[in-house]
Amino acid sequence: MRVRNKPWAKDKIAEHPEVVIPNPMDVKGHWREVFKNDHPVHLEIGTGKGQFILGMAKQYPMINFIGIEIEASIIVSALEKWLEEPLANVLLLNENAEQITDFFAEHEVDDMYLNFSDPWPKNRHEKRRLTYRSFLKSYEAILKPGGRLNLKTDNQGLFEYSLESFSKYGLQLEHISLDLHASDYKENVKTEYEEKFSQKGQRIYRCEAIFPQ
Amino acid sequence: MRVRNKPWAKDKIAEHPEVVIPNPMDVKGHWREVFKNDHPVHLEIGTGKGQFILGMAKQYPMINFIGIEIEASIIVSALEKWLEEPLANVLLLNENAEQITDFFAEHEVDDMYLNFSDPWPKNRHEKRRLTYRSFLKSYEAILKPGGRLNLKTDNQGLFEYSLESFSKYGLQLEHISLDLHASDYKENVKTEYEEKFSQKGQRIYRCEAIFPQ
Ligand SMILES: C[S@@+](CC[C@H](N)C(=O)[O-])C[C@H]1O[C@@H](n2cnc3c(N)ncnc32)[C@H](O)[C@@H]1O
Ligand SMILES: C[S@@+](CC[C@H](N)C(=O)[O-])C[C@H]1O[C@@H](n2cnc3c(N)ncnc32)[C@H](O)[C@@H]1O
Repeated sequence: MRVRNKPWAKDKIAEHPEVVIPNPMDVKGHWREVFKNDHPVHLEIGTGKGQFILGMAKQYPMINFIGIEIEASIIVSALEKWLEEPLANVLLLNENAEQITDFFAEHEVDDMYLNFSDPWPKNRHEKRRLTYRSFLKSYEAILKPGGRLNLKTDNQGLFEYSLESFSKYGLQLEHISLDLHASDYKENVKTEYEEKFSQKGQRIYRCEAIFPQ
Repeated sequence: MRVRNKPWAKDKIAEHPEVVIPNPMDVKGHWREVFKNDHPVHLEIGTGKGQFILGMAKQYPMINFIGIEIEASIIVSALEKWLEEPLANVLLLNENAEQITDFFAEHEVDDMYLNFSDPWPKNRHEKRRLTYRSFLKSYEAILKPGGRLNLKTDNQGLFEYSLESFSKYGLQLEHISLDLHASDYKENVKTEYEEKFSQKGQRIYRCEAIFPQ
């Protein structure tokens, strides 16, 4: 994502610890206490400007959503949307997803989402792809057994790679769609990138990968 | 495939038992003796008019190829091509693939191909799809451990279904391509359907599914 630098973003984020959690390590194992309920916890990696997570949170009020986004200048847009319409079932983390096992305890997360993750097309950057096996290992560490990783992307190479990486890791594939917007998947909540790419006529790919029970 | 009925096809086939094997059940467990060598045996299901299998046999002279096609009026075209240019590493079977375990012994086949198989899009016809689990079971019965099933199709629904069916069966996915002709897979040998559909601008999908070692 091209990031317009917003020097004020970090301050703005710091002013809203009720929604952008400042020290997620301290909350590890206790997210349901923060949400004040026992609902499932769904985690999105690379939340961007928050359109997806806020849309999902509205559509599924009985699910708690947490979005991680590394760039302050980007997540601040999600924060601004949230301030316009606060939702009790959304929390944001301005953090690096490489650290998720520091933020979440074993089995603490029910479902995960990767939407339009950076494709890192060069072979030598394989390890940076969010569907590389070391990331899958960290997802497995925090997901409940049988938890789902939901993937959407417009990037053909990343999708091919991810299906193979999931398969190699022993995940089971479900609900594969090679043209999401032409499919009958009605519940879809679009992300910012998804709107942009589908308007350009690009296909959107989707699948679910299920971790072993 | 729309079949122009050729009443003479069966007779023509019967005249060439050297290439269209009349009683494959009798050869079960002995295919390498028919080929008179110990080379790997690759099996194509739904060979159609034979362009793929004959092209592969020319490209890979050290591999034995067997093609099964249920329709006499279609396989006779493969026979005619073979007669123009006989290849010692090709045999044809005018048979129903549902019976392959009667034709091949355990571990007798090294690799398999499904090219542009009938998609059977209706849910109630799922069991007819050549990637349905009962078919995978019969492929596993004749393939060597670690054997590969190579799939090509233009049909989005069949491809999505097949990836999920492979995954559910515990097969490992490799070399997934969501646009084969735009990829760098140079060794590709085109089938009749592949030429027709790609000329119409349709994408060709491909993957390999590997049976457990
Ligand atoms: C291509 S954008 C997609 C944004 C949004 N998901 C969408 O679909 O519109 C990818 C986002 O992932 C974020 N990101 C990349 N690596 C990350 C990491 N290790 N941890 C957290 N966020 C990351 C980027 O900053 C960027 O905002
Ligand atoms: C759509 S055509 C594709 C032909 C060829 N593979 C190609 O790509 O050009 C499918 C072929 O599979 C054959 N077929 C379908 N079911 C079969 C079965 N159970 N056993 C053998 N052949 C079968 C059909 O007769 C037809 O020729």
